[in-house]
Parts: sequence; structure tokens; C-alpha cells
Amino acid sequence: MATAAKHVVIVGGGFAGLNAAKVLGNQAAIRVTLIDRRNHHLFQPLLYQVAMAALSPAEIAAPIRHILARCRNITVLQDEVTGVDLAARTVIARNTTLPYDYLLLACGARHAYFGHEEWEEFAPGLKTIEQATEIRRRVLNAFEAAERSTAPEEQCRHLTFVIVGGGPTGVELAGAIGEMSRYTLAQDFRNINSRLARIILLEAGPRILPSFSERLAGKATRDLEALGVQVRTASPVTGMDHDGVQVGRERLEASTILWAAGVQAAGLGQTLGAKTDRLGRIVVEADLSLPSHPEVFVAGDQACFTHGRTAPLPGLAPVALQQGRAIARNILREINGFPRQPFHYRDKGQLATIGRSKAIVEIGRLRFDGFLAWLTWLVVHIYYLIGFENRVFVTMRWVWSFFNFRRGARLIVDKEWRFYRPNNRNRP
Amino acid sequence: MATAAKHVVIVGGGFAGLNAAKVLGNQAAIRVTLIDRRNHHLFQPLLYQVAMAALSPAEIAAPIRHILARCRNITVLQDEVTGVDLAARTVIARNTTLPYDYLLLACGARHAYFGHEEWEEFAPGLKTIEQATEIRRRVLNAFEAAERSTAPEEQCRHLTFVIVGGGPTGVELAGAIGEMSRYTLAQDFRNINSRLARIILLEAGPRILPSFSERLAGKATRDLEALGVQVRTASPVTGMDHDGVQVGRERLEASTILWAAGVQAAGLGQTLGAKTDRLGRIVVEADLSLPSHPEVFVAGDQACFTHGRTAPLPGLAPVALQQGRAIARNILREINGFPRQPFHYRDKGQLATIGRSKAIVEIGRLRFDGFLAWLTWLVVHIYYLIGFENRVFVTMRWVWSFFNFRRGARLIVDKEWRFYRPNNRNRP
Repeated sequence: MATAAKHVVIVGGGFAGLNAAKVLGNQAAIRVTLIDRRNHHLFQPLLYQVAMAALSPAEIAAPIRHILARCRNITVLQDEVTGVDLAARTVIARNTTLPYDYLLLACGARHAYFGHEEWEEFAPGLKTIEQATEIRRRVLNAFEAAERSTAPEEQCRHLTFVIVGGGPTGVELAGAIGEMSRYTLAQDFRNINSRLARIILLEAGPRILPSFSERLAGKATRDLEALGVQVRTASPVTGMDHDGVQVGRERLEASTILWAAGVQAAGLGQTLGAKTDRLGRIVVEADLSLPSHPEVFVAGDQACFTHGRTAPLPGLAPVALQQGRAIARNILREINGFPRQPFHYRDKGQLATIGRSKAIVEIGRLRFDGFLAWLTWLVVHIYYLIGFENRVFVTMRWVWSFFNFRRGARLIVDKEWRFYRPNNRNRP
Repeated sequence: MATAAKHVVIVGGGFAGLNAAKVLGNQAAIRVTLIDRRNHHLFQPLLYQVAMAALSPAEIAAPIRHILARCRNITVLQDEVTGVDLAARTVIARNTTLPYDYLLLACGARHAYFGHEEWEEFAPGLKTIEQATEIRRRVLNAFEAAERSTAPEEQCRHLTFVIVGGGPTGVELAGAIGEMSRYTLAQDFRNINSRLARIILLEAGPRILPSFSERLAGKATRDLEALGVQVRTASPVTGMDHDGVQVGRERLEASTILWAAGVQAAGLGQTLGAKTDRLGRIVVEADLSLPSHPEVFVAGDQACFTHGRTAPLPGLAPVALQQGRAIARNILREINGFPRQPFHYRDKGQLATIGRSKAIVEIGRLRFDGFLAWLTWLVVHIYYLIGFENRVFVTMRWVWSFFNFRRGARLIVDKEWRFYRPNNRNRP
């Protein structure tokens, strides 16, 4: 490769970053460095299945450097980017500093409590594998604690699960807990009847799944209720602690609370001095570049793209994927002397699943639900999952649990690995 | 069930406890409570494969209550037993106290540093899923750090892996790191050559694998060397820190140190006032009962069984499995008015594997190695793995990685799940 090769730095190995890298892979005149805090790309649409003990973390994640191993012009670094010097065109990470010719910021989003960060301790969000494992630990531990307990009100508290937020993630979590308590765990306990678990889905707005049509959202509500989930709309949470949540004047005693109520773009975007929207997303140009910095692009959950639209593009995997590819193609065009093209989103529709064999699908004007929708959901998710191996194994897990309701990953894993902790060093 | 049903309490859901429970399951006149700190039975012989990113934790573990769900006379409790009142015949756990007619202690063993507990921080042992995940994190992080690094001596330290202890676990870990660096990771890095990783297996005694014949141990040494592992015998570790180990006068710079040098029986045994051996194992009668307490049995890694033998039975899965079953059968015999029978171990031989297609097998006088031994190892481990589902998935993973050298679980997972930690609560 010539020394004149343009250096493209990609921050983030999610859908946007990874797909940009794939387009730029093995292209002459370009060298790419992809930086991510994690060593793995995570297929976030299936993360709730890890939290719900249906899949193992490794089945929906793959090492970024392995995915890109054959692209010899791409270097992958595991590092945390702490800042960008736009004037000097350098990216500053904890262990290194990298100059760039083109920069793609695709750092994604994190869950957010909008001023109530202290709630995280009581109600974990679902954005990383660690959080999924924490949620799994809490849900399974609640059933174990209920089985051990002899006081009825304590048992009831352990068997109450509150999910805050009625978007797709909240719906999927609530449906999965309903299914787990009704089917998977039904034979496993002696002192409790897991079928009596109370699952409450709280939504502050007037209805769940606001991005879907009213008819489909109603269908999803009925499917959830069939799994024992109480759906409560117009119910904003006003307080919480380890033992429950406050909804207006009502107190709900619950030892498990899950947060699916809000996300915010990664913090790095707010340090650039660029205009951001109320979710912290950077407002981008029609070609996804930063205003007055055409060499910097922003994609995925970190970008606020409004051109030719009434509302910004939502934080969906297909949006990130298409944006990553579009940016990479524009970089190639520019290097080869062609003008850039504006980004156009090809709407792939949206899906949400409720339990084992129900889903809702909305693709343009096409709207359907039930088993066929669930099959669609299944095929789409298998298709986009990264890595042939993961596809094979996840398909097998699903076929397996479809027929016997089992969940292959019902493990409660501790956070601490040490046996000899400082405070019990003298233990015999 | 009549009120006169005898209550059998089993502490520990490992090979001994689980197999005892299975024999006692659905037997009239008996009710069983199995207590374990964890919610899962762990197939320890394959734990090194989780540490080496070849398998996921859920593939070698299964929820105890699910395994025993069809035994309606068995209650499973997740709780930590803190003591036994032999006089009052009660088991004391953190959340409950249980009277028993028969007690089976099968708490297993933990790794031990024999007076150097401060070494745990530098060199994790391999007994739990949490430790396996920690080892995986350290090994994969070492390669990432080497790739980031630009100083040659620092790179060399990151690419040096020291395994302390030349028993089967140490040999399996060293072989797996050798294979990973030579094959799995070979294409994935740009700044380092993972094939140049130094892997050093330190053994204090005169040779590795002392429980095997000298010829097979020699064969294993050559197989390890073919994978790039340096085997150093008569090399006791005298000190260690975050950056390396001291072996006599020599200092080995290494950022990854793994401990496979010793185990000790679970602490509970030492609180009973019974005679224990130097590994903390309780010396048991010929029927595996506690001397002068015929209603209390000890099995597996926690028992020191010497009857009719020159050395105590080793801490192997078949020993624990047979002991658990024998104890359960003696309890049934006694309840039905028949005398107890002494325990006889049927030697199932021993196996160890080195890398992807080599192993050594010793069954009585039958000794062999190479590919056939590896096939034997494979069939035996699949056969004893708990749960049909796990058998199917592990077989598939192995077939898969046999042909393409991949490892399906190369995930570095953090310990902390929270984003809003107390010290960065004001982060934007």
C-alpha cells in the first residue's frame, strides 16, 4: 500500500462501524483503524434473549478482529476513545492517539434515566452483555428467593417483576418473563407456583409500542395479557428503591425492576461542540457528515438525521447498517474523485416479538401479527446475525426451545471470581 | 407421602450430590432437600474449555432444580450452608435451618495457595464459572494489550503465559493457549505475531502428570512442546506479582499467570471436629460415613477414602459419582431393613487432553495416546455431560472447531454492569 493511503478511523464496532469497515476492507489507497472499548460486536436486537436465559452471550457476539481478519488493511484496537481533536484531526484514546483523514463516529447509545441516575442500581438497563447477565441474575434469583421464603408478602414481592418502558425492549422482556414463569419454570419449584408471578409493564405514555400502528399495539397488549403480563399505560414512575416502585400514589412491591424506558447517545458526541438533540444525538448533514467538518461522519444511534423527514430516523439496526455502508461508499467516491451522495434510508419496517410464537410486523403498509409475524421475525434476526456459526447455533437453540419450552442458559453467575477476598484472607 | 418419611439433606450439587439425589428421587418413605450455593450443576472436567473460550458457561452447566424437576420428593434450595450441628442433627444455612435424618456432605474442593492466598489476585485458579470467565478475560486481554503496545519488552510480557502446576488442568490450559496462539488467533492481529507467544508450564515436582505413567507423561510433554509450550519441571514458584513470577533465582516477566497447582477440600468439613487429611478432606469409614456419626456421609472431593488402598482415592468425577450413588443405595438399604455395604471404587481410568486432537488415556493396564485417545476423551466427556441439550451443543461446537480451529466464545466480558457508577454520576 502506498504511503499516501488515506487513514480512516472508525470509533465503535456496532452495526454502523462494522458495516462501514466491511465496505472499506481490502480497498487500495485506504487504511482503516477500528477502535472499540469491547473486543466484540454485539447483536443488540437479541440481547433480551441473553437477559432472559434463552441464549448465551457468545451466541450473539463475535470478536470484531475475527470478523475483519481477512481485511488486511484494517487494524482493530481495543481501547476507549476519550476525545476528538477536530482541528488537529486526531482521535485521543486511553492508550493511544491516532491521526485521521476521515473519522466515523459510531459509538451508539446507552440507557439513560434522565436525571435519575441513582435508579440504575434498582433497575438495570439493557445495552451490554454485562447488563444482560445482571438482569438474568436478578430474575432467576428472585424465583430462588421466593422458593426459600416462607412469608407470603415476601414471596409476593419476589414474584413481582416490574418493567419500566413500553417500547419493543420492554415488551420483549415482559413477554419473556411471562413465558418463563408460565412454562419454563412451571415444574421446577416446590414451595411456589411460578405461574402466579405478577409481571407489570409500566408505560408513561398513552399506549405501548408508539412507533407501531394502534391496531398492532393493541394486538401486542392482548398477547402480553395472555402471558399474564399486566400492561399499565399512562403510568409514569416517580420513585423507586430496592423493594419496589412508586407510580403516582400507588406503591408496587417488587424485588425485580427492569429499565427499558430511555436511551441517550454516547457521551463523546457532546464533547465536540456540535449541535445535539435532546437525546444527545449529533445533528448531521444530508451525507451524515458533521456540519463544517466534511471529514467527520456520524452514524447509527449517535446521529440525528432529519433530512426530508418529519422525525429523526429511529435507533434501529437497519438505519445504522445502511448509514455505515453509505458513509464508506462516500469516502471511496471522494477518494476516487466523485462527488458524495446524500443518504437515503430504505425503510425495512419494524418488528417486535411477544413470547415464543407471537410477534407484530410492520413493513410500510404491510402489517401482520401472530405466528407468521413471528416466523418473519425469526428469519430476519437469523439472517442479520453476524457469523455463520452463530446463525447455526441460535437457530438450533430456538428450534429446541420451541418444542420443549426450555431455556438453555439458566445460569446465575456471580460478579466476584475470587475465593480469598481481602476480608476473608484468614479463612481456613 | 407419610409423615414418617426420612429427610435426607444433601449439601452440594456436584457429581456426588446430584447422583445421590437421582438415586433417592421418587422413592417412597424419603424426602430430600438438596442445598447448593449455586443454582447450577457444573461439569468441571470441561471448565478449562470455558476459560479457553471454546465453550460458553451455559454449555457445561445446568440448573440443579431443572435436572431434578421430575423427582417430586426433592426440594432444591439455593443457599449457603455455614455449619452443621451434629448433636441436634440440623444443617444451618444463611436463610434457613434444616433438621435431617441423613446428611450427605458433598461440598467439593476449591483451589488453594497453601499459605500464599495473596497470590490469587495475580494467578486465578479454575474451579468456578466466574474464575473461568476471569481467566478468559485475562488471556484475551493480554493479546489485545500486546497488539496495542509499541514497546518490545512490554509486548513480550503480554505475550508470555505462565501456568503453575503440571497436573491435568495445567496441561489442558497450557495446550489450549498453545493452540489458540498458533491457530485460532494467527490471522487476527496486525502488530503482533500471536504464534510467538511464550507459554511456560511450571511444575514443582520432577515431572508433569505424576498420576499417569512415565511414558504417557513424556508423550504429553512432547505434544505440549509441539504446540510451543515450554515444560519446566523441578521449578517451584517462590513469588509473584502483577507482572511476573519468581522461580528460584529466575524472574519470568508475564502479564498472565494461571494457577493449577493445588486444591483443598471445602471449608465446612474442617468445622465438624472430624479428622481431616492435609488437603482438608474428612477421613471416612468404609461406607463413607463420618466416624461415630453413621447418619452423616461425606463424598467426592471432600472425602478422604483409604480403605483397602495405598493412597486416598483421587479427586476425580467418577469417584464422586460412584460415591454419591453408593451412599444413596446404603440409605435405601437401611430404611428397608438391610445392612449397609462398604464402598468399592470401580476404576474408570484417567484421561488428559492436549490441544485439539491429542490426548493420553490410562485405563488399568491399557495405555494409549494420540488421536484415538483424543476420540476416547471426547466420547467419555460427551457421555457424562448432564443434559441431552448440552451434549448436542457441545458436540457441535467441537466438530465445528475441529475443522476450522475457531473458538466460539472469544468474549471479553467486564465485571461491572453499571454505567452510572457512584464516581461518575455527574457524567453527561
